[in-house]
Amino acid sequence: MFDYKLLAALAAVVEQAGFERGAQVLGVSQSAISQRIKLLEARIGQPVLVRATPPTPTDIGRRLLNHVQQVRLLERDLQSQVPALDEEGMPERLRIALNADSLATWWAEAVSDFCAEQHLLLDLVVEDQTVGLKRMRAGEVAACICASERPVAGARSLLLGAMRYRALASPAFIARHFPGGVRADLVARTPALVFGPDDFLQHRYLASLGVEGGFEHHLCPSSEGFMRLVEAGLGWGLVPELQVHDQLERGVLVELLPDKPIDVPLYWHHWRSGGQLLGMLTEHLARATGQWLVPLE
Amino acid sequence: MFDYKLLAALAAVVEQAGFERGAQVLGVSQSAISQRIKLLEARIGQPVLVRATPPTPTDIGRRLLNHVQQVRLLERDLQSQVPALDEEGMPERLRIALNADSLATWWAEAVSDFCAEQHLLLDLVVEDQTVGLKRMRAGEVAACICASERPVAGARSLLLGAMRYRALASPAFIARHFPGGVRADLVARTPALVFGPDDFLQHRYLASLGVEGGFEHHLCPSSEGFMRLVEAGLGWGLVPELQVHDQLERGVLVELLPDKPIDVPLYWHHWRSGGQLLGMLTEHLARATGQWLVPLE
Repeated sequence: MFDYKLLAALAAVVEQAGFERGAQVLGVSQSAISQRIKLLEARIGQPVLVRATPPTPTDIGRRLLNHVQQVRLLERDLQSQVPALDEEGMPERLRIALNADSLATWWAEAVSDFCAEQHLLLDLVVEDQTVGLKRMRAGEVAACICASERPVAGARSLLLGAMRYRALASPAFIARHFPGGVRADLVARTPALVFGPDDFLQHRYLASLGVEGGFEHHLCPSSEGFMRLVEAGLGWGLVPELQVHDQLERGVLVELLPDKPIDVPLYWHHWRSGGQLLGMLTEHLARATGQWLVPLE
Repeated sequence: MFDYKLLAALAAVVEQAGFERGAQVLGVSQSAISQRIKLLEARIGQPVLVRATPPTPTDIGRRLLNHVQQVRLLERDLQSQVPALDEEGMPERLRIALNADSLATWWAEAVSDFCAEQHLLLDLVVEDQTVGLKRMRAGEVAACICASERPVAGARSLLLGAMRYRALASPAFIARHFPGGVRADLVARTPALVFGPDDFLQHRYLASLGVEGGFEHHLCPSSEGFMRLVEAGLGWGLVPELQVHDQLERGVLVELLPDKPIDVPLYWHHWRSGGQLLGMLTEHLARATGQWLVPLE
């Protein structure tokens, strides 16, 4: 068997993004955790961590973390079958990466009953899609919600549905920038909002209007902040329909051009040998998410 | 004079979190940008970057970035005085780090008119307070909003006011966990919500009730997601009052124990030689934020 004390040290340092915090979580000293990682490296004969801020796993480190994650999930199952092994009534914990817009809209409602019934604690990580999958590959999360279908090795992906986005702005923004009415060719000359460097929704929208090339934009990597900036009239941007039912009804936000939504698929990536609880959560999501997501065309 | 082509390469790689994207932003090849950084290191005689994912600056790299940031701010001023230097009507851009809760609540409304009048684009970075200040020190942002007062060298800090947080839960959560009424000693035995490893608000709240030690909690690093999880009854947590006026009025959320708020001060950190636009924004915020923030006692 592997020495899991060493592997747990590696996992703690990576998951807590530092030696000090990793040591705190394990309840050992920083020099103890650092010793364990050196010992692990001595046994394997190569480094498992890049000592940067935060420390990142090497390729072999990543493979070890992936293994740790899977063992943890299997341990959970065993504990439910062998209650004596279980620390009295301790709740389960699942680490899940998801996109900010899901977390800002349907996620809480979709999982609340499940968490209460299963006494499950969530450790949520907000990531854009590419990084979410990287964290799966690195074994840092048990599951991940993202827009790309292709699962990492050892995992499965399940289509949950699509989130519908609409290009919105405030009435004041529209009055200021489009006094003669909104025209597709003028949209690219007004400031847009973009979530971050990996957010190409606004580019896709402009492309669908036949507009290519760059455009002025604010960067705002927060779902709620993004919506607030649109409401306050700083720019136009693509916002999940789920987040703005109320604002659209009240006329606080308006669609730039009528009925031109963009649908983004959401896939649930989960480890194949992820254990019972993860399997149950997967089934639960497959049943429940249709309430909030639209079918992918 | 320094060779700013080399410094700009360093800044692009750090700000874009990678060589590839850094090269894209500068419109050069990846090998060109990598050459420039090697040349910079050869001239200085030591590494400026740790080649991890993402690349992080070394100590000397950080000092260089700080310098680049300040030069950029000064260039902005010069452009407004020497219009010929200015690329025709190009909007200004300020990179600002702020806490997620400010962005989710008062920030957009506070700056929208200023941005429209000054033709200012925002490049917002969401960070908890300690990391926000690190980004100031690294010269990656022009300003930062955080809870700690002490400015980094070369910068000033200005108290904007305090955000008021209240410990909230859904009526269903309270009915399930506190059938006999909410009692301080029982709160620590119900699941809490915590924003991330640096969020000690829930700990402070429990301490104010005389409860010490650990407690079950979900982790949710998103303001909007945090509120949604509280609404959906997954746990109790401290939420900015500004964010939930409506929910408190409608009774969708209730305060755990009557009138026990926690106030968190917010400081505006900005470079002393940050240029005119940053100075104007500072004055604007000093005047405007009283509408949303409470005086610090």
